[in-house]
Amino acid sequence: MEYTKFMADRVKTMKGSAIREMFKRMADPEIISLAGGNPASELFPGDELSKIAGKILMTNPTLALQYGTTDGYPKMKDCARKRAEKVNSVGENDEILIMTGANQGIDLTAKAVLNKGDKVIVESPSFIGSLNAFRTYEAELVGVTVEADGMNMDELEETLKNTDGVKMIYTIPTFQNPTGCTMSLEKRKRMLEIASKYDVLILEDNPYGDLRFAGEDVPTIKSLDTEDRVVYAGSFSKILSPGMRLGYIVAPAPLAEKIEMLKQVNDVHTPMITQLMCVEFMKKYDIDKYIAKNRELYGKKCAAMVSAMEKYFPQGKVKWVVPEGGIFLWCECPTIEDITPIVDKCLEKKVAIVPGSNFATDIYAPSNMFRLNYSSATIENIEEGVRRLGEVLTEML
Amino acid sequence: MEYTKFMADRVKTMKGSAIREMFKRMADPEIISLAGGNPASELFPGDELSKIAGKILMTNPTLALQYGTTDGYPKMKDCARKRAEKVNSVGENDEILIMTGANQGIDLTAKAVLNKGDKVIVESPSFIGSLNAFRTYEAELVGVTVEADGMNMDELEETLKNTDGVKMIYTIPTFQNPTGCTMSLEKRKRMLEIASKYDVLILEDNPYGDLRFAGEDVPTIKSLDTEDRVVYAGSFSKILSPGMRLGYIVAPAPLAEKIEMLKQVNDVHTPMITQLMCVEFMKKYDIDKYIAKNRELYGKKCAAMVSAMEKYFPQGKVKWVVPEGGIFLWCECPTIEDITPIVDKCLEKKVAIVPGSNFATDIYAPSNMFRLNYSSATIENIEEGVRRLGEVLTEML
Repeated sequence: MEYTKFMADRVKTMKGSAIREMFKRMADPEIISLAGGNPASELFPGDELSKIAGKILMTNPTLALQYGTTDGYPKMKDCARKRAEKVNSVGENDEILIMTGANQGIDLTAKAVLNKGDKVIVESPSFIGSLNAFRTYEAELVGVTVEADGMNMDELEETLKNTDGVKMIYTIPTFQNPTGCTMSLEKRKRMLEIASKYDVLILEDNPYGDLRFAGEDVPTIKSLDTEDRVVYAGSFSKILSPGMRLGYIVAPAPLAEKIEMLKQVNDVHTPMITQLMCVEFMKKYDIDKYIAKNRELYGKKCAAMVSAMEKYFPQGKVKWVVPEGGIFLWCECPTIEDITPIVDKCLEKKVAIVPGSNFATDIYAPSNMFRLNYSSATIENIEEGVRRLGEVLTEML
Repeated sequence: MEYTKFMADRVKTMKGSAIREMFKRMADPEIISLAGGNPASELFPGDELSKIAGKILMTNPTLALQYGTTDGYPKMKDCARKRAEKVNSVGENDEILIMTGANQGIDLTAKAVLNKGDKVIVESPSFIGSLNAFRTYEAELVGVTVEADGMNMDELEETLKNTDGVKMIYTIPTFQNPTGCTMSLEKRKRMLEIASKYDVLILEDNPYGDLRFAGEDVPTIKSLDTEDRVVYAGSFSKILSPGMRLGYIVAPAPLAEKIEMLKQVNDVHTPMITQLMCVEFMKKYDIDKYIAKNRELYGKKCAAMVSAMEKYFPQGKVKWVVPEGGIFLWCECPTIEDITPIVDKCLEKKVAIVPGSNFATDIYAPSNMFRLNYSSATIENIEEGVRRLGEVLTEML
């Protein structure tokens, strides 16, 4: 049978994530992956969550195993609220919705907002999962350059001035994926002014905000928002466990109501046991202490990566900005046009990195950039991986 | 701020499920609910799952807490395959995808198939969650009457002959929600012939198929499909736990590939701990024995409901078909036009039922039908609930 005629336009030309394709090639256990976005698993609180899950299912099986409500288990909503309030990101007109990962919140916010042909301004480069979510609603992506201190605001204003049909700006202002860059306070304020002037929504995605290991915290855009213009997506993936798929959305009530209806027809509700585990973990343990351990580890791993890069990369041929938190480091090779042959050669040498084209609004345009991750591998593997990468770069640049 | 202008057309007129609204009114603990679709919680294997979850998190925290793959944990895919193969519903060109509840599979199948304005043929009445999912892709729903032995096939053929742009037939052939009716083998074969003649897909939703307590099993439509025309949605919600949100899709590879990409941008993957719990439960215990216990209980509860209906309902004023499985019983009141005043009066008398309009393609048209659920309440409460309902019906019919 021929299935193309049954396919919706939105999926006909859709390409799977090239990162996932690369993961398939990475089954080889000798490959050191600097490619993924996995948080460090060595700190996962398995023992604590084991006791917690065991006890919940033993003492309250009905709550843990029966249907729950779409907006989230009330105490889990309180946990999400606490995290969001810690960064002053819950306005009085906002509702909180628990999501099966923040990605679901971004997907369903896009579904609630975007008609075919509507435009979304995104950082260029940006997180492929969100860009692909927007693409599935047949929205047009308009990229605005990310600089070391965040999105270029003049370019943003110019773009809004010259572009009709923009409904939303999507931003990861803190420790951005893939660049690791953080938007300055000034730029955050300016973004709110521009969004107000051109009357567009802001979707602020903040999965890495808790992972600062250097410098000073910058307020979230949501915390500076006086017009209820910002939808805020938070996540437990990088501060507790990504495999539990727990995130949340803070959104003005009229939008939250629609997003909740879309969740109702999507997965009905987020699994109860993962919500209950998170609630109990936050009740019994100080999650900020746990996060602090992660931050410390990521700081060390980042430093190890940067020092290996300084040692093994060909001098003056690769540019990067040292991140102050998060899990990614972004590199540019100004002397070449296309990083693809280097990425392929790296796989031969058993080290995996992600080519920059994956994060672009135009995934077919060549890119001379690549993303490195330092949260997942051990320090030893980071050093060896960067050494292998340095060999390839020295040979090919 | 005014949000309507930021909303996508798909959500502007979207109404939340009236069932959920009713649930909010049901906070009163004295209300006996015959309204929901919850499976019996008294049989949930809490002790078994408690030990399983505790052990997994203790011995393999990385697997349980780290990111997983979008298509599902391989051993969980094997579990889903076993359930689907038990009813001969995996073709050689099919792929299996684990879903965060079967509802997600239906939502994402619709997203992969439906453009705005495309038509979906649905049973009239049908499951509100699926109808609302189709509505969010701006598809048009075309209803075909459900009879005691399933969809009216002449009407289906007539509808397809006279309707352009139909891409898919959505059916719950076994113990249908809301009618409890099961499609005969003959009609299943005829549906495949008609679907082939008019070249449309079939989406077969089978969450209740394992719950037969009377009569003989009927083969799934998928098992009779020789053209790879059927997408099959299976669920663990009614045979293990709905709160775990575990379901699956069996779909021809070209469609499965697109659905997987849509899941990637939706929740990335189904939580690992729930998948691992299901895998271990099916490894350590005979899930069919557990299902058999549920079937027996539902048979008893259904019999209790029917016998109470015979005792308390006004004679000759309410028509129903006794189901052979599943969790729902459907009633018609031929002497009236609109059941709404009765439903409201029932709430006053502290018993909740769902008006038929919820399950219609046109939710604004009056309905003289209502749905009862017998899986959730205790036998005592079923009898008392039906007694209260009988009082209202006797008074108002």
